[in-house]
Amino acid sequence: MPNAVRRHLINNPQNVIDEALEGFALTNPHLVNFDPENNLILRKNPAQGKVGLVSGGGSGHEPLHAGFVGNGMLDVAVCGAVFASPTAAQVLAGTVGADTGAGVVQIVKNYTGDVLNFSIAGELADDENIAVEQIIVDDDLASQKSEGGPGRRGTAAVLTVEKICGALAERGADRATIATIGRDVVSRSRSLAIALDAGAHPGESTAAFELEPHEVEFGIGIHGERGTARINYASADELVEQLVTPLVESLEIKRGQSVIALVNGLGGAYPLELSIAARRVHGLLNASGISVARSLAGSYVTSLNMHGLSVTLTVADDELVKLWDAPVRTSALSW
Amino acid sequence: MPNAVRRHLINNPQNVIDEALEGFALTNPHLVNFDPENNLILRKNPAQGKVGLVSGGGSGHEPLHAGFVGNGMLDVAVCGAVFASPTAAQVLAGTVGADTGAGVVQIVKNYTGDVLNFSIAGELADDENIAVEQIIVDDDLASQKSEGGPGRRGTAAVLTVEKICGALAERGADRATIATIGRDVVSRSRSLAIALDAGAHPGESTAAFELEPHEVEFGIGIHGERGTARINYASADELVEQLVTPLVESLEIKRGQSVIALVNGLGGAYPLELSIAARRVHGLLNASGISVARSLAGSYVTSLNMHGLSVTLTVADDELVKLWDAPVRTSALSW
Repeated sequence: MPNAVRRHLINNPQNVIDEALEGFALTNPHLVNFDPENNLILRKNPAQGKVGLVSGGGSGHEPLHAGFVGNGMLDVAVCGAVFASPTAAQVLAGTVGADTGAGVVQIVKNYTGDVLNFSIAGELADDENIAVEQIIVDDDLASQKSEGGPGRRGTAAVLTVEKICGALAERGADRATIATIGRDVVSRSRSLAIALDAGAHPGESTAAFELEPHEVEFGIGIHGERGTARINYASADELVEQLVTPLVESLEIKRGQSVIALVNGLGGAYPLELSIAARRVHGLLNASGISVARSLAGSYVTSLNMHGLSVTLTVADDELVKLWDAPVRTSALSW
Repeated sequence: MPNAVRRHLINNPQNVIDEALEGFALTNPHLVNFDPENNLILRKNPAQGKVGLVSGGGSGHEPLHAGFVGNGMLDVAVCGAVFASPTAAQVLAGTVGADTGAGVVQIVKNYTGDVLNFSIAGELADDENIAVEQIIVDDDLASQKSEGGPGRRGTAAVLTVEKICGALAERGADRATIATIGRDVVSRSRSLAIALDAGAHPGESTAAFELEPHEVEFGIGIHGERGTARINYASADELVEQLVTPLVESLEIKRGQSVIALVNGLGGAYPLELSIAARRVHGLLNASGISVARSLAGSYVTSLNMHGLSVTLTVADDELVKLWDAPVRTSALSW
């Protein structure tokens, strides 16, 4: 039985993000610089003349976004407090920091605070003669409603968007091209997640919610919140099928099409669990005549230490796979 | 409060390793092949004529070792059951699989079962005219005794040894050179670990041991076992200092020397915690006039989902740093 009281390897809960970013930068001095005033992680050697890519949002999703700063992916990550949007002033500093003359594309997960602050920052950057395009990532199928509301949340597909847009920027694509293809990747991507245990904020001794031993939380986001339903605890194969089937239906993926698949741990899932889930994702898709062109399994877009996982599918074509395969050199993704 | 009962995203506890390896290979078809008969993960495109590097041991330490198979690191990972040595027959198959004519170097963590089975396999390979050298990794300071016993356990320094030896093999070094330098890396490396929560075996609902809210387990290994002492729960900075100070003393690291530092999560630590710990490791060493030539922070050598971390220091020189920096392309480590 685990300890009923959650404990954390931290110092002061108030300083968690500041200290973690400092530690991250000390660990990766060849890849990034750290701006402690605005909590920015900036690419060490920005390519000149290319479009700058900036992303960010609340912290607690590590390695996202700082772990994706580097050659072939992001130029700047703007880091808010845990699960809280960075301010418009922070995002403006990040947007200015990402510009080397060719303007900036912002990649923003669809949350009200993030969209607001990135948009304000974009307008302020425009006043400083930095042209800004924005891509809103809204892949979470569980938060899709027929009408009204803020729309689907942005979750793990942001990794796919950052990778594809990073490759485009690196090969010299202009802002409009990057934004258009980035939005197309969003429209081809959907995610769904489950959790067996909620996470706990740094310094808090209790998790965000409790589940009975027979319950699994279905349709969760990446902020420790409850999902849209509780389903029965079952084998990994059965649980993963309940994620993959609605994704395939929603994206209307047909036999003969191919996908990029991301099996993403939410912080508390361990690699054996993610590999077992990945096996099932491959098996289900192959059985439906859908080819898995590329896949990743790992904890990339987390929700603190939540014990759960998400599956993201992106309908792929040869060009998208080529961009996916392009060299990348960041702390969390490198090939 | 987390669920008192631990649950796992698995199917049948009996099939966890088989299914996870299959999923790992499906996710990384560009890097590895999978031999399901012997639970081997083999490098996809072995370089011809270079010395083969084989490692392995019990599973439950993922991404170790399968995650380190690829260009610039291992040729074969031999995967046992959770926390149980692979058989000599498995290791023999892996040793044969790693040979492309220049012989094999085995990298073995110091546990009785692993050492026995790798040694038997080495002798059997020799009978098949495959020359084998063996490097025993025994970096865990907590298990050091003045006399007798099996000696220090092998823990996270195995990553450093695999990286350095992989670079040597790639540049064409012969078996004796790789073994000599690999053993030298072992002698320059020590590790220490703590945990706030024990892990649980796949399928088991209770953790290996329980701690009171004020307790931290000190001097643990990577098999879920208890450590050598219980210390008081304290800030990350204080806890990390209790790891770093004995390491520096044991290795007799002097002002002006430099190290490669590994801040390794044991499975249940999340990236913010590891970055905060890494900040402290850098701070302590710099304050002592010891330069951190290179460092890594991440969950590389785990103990299932144990919530804890280890620190490994390796006394470095320019040549070692050059080998560390050499290109590597594996699932878990790539640059």
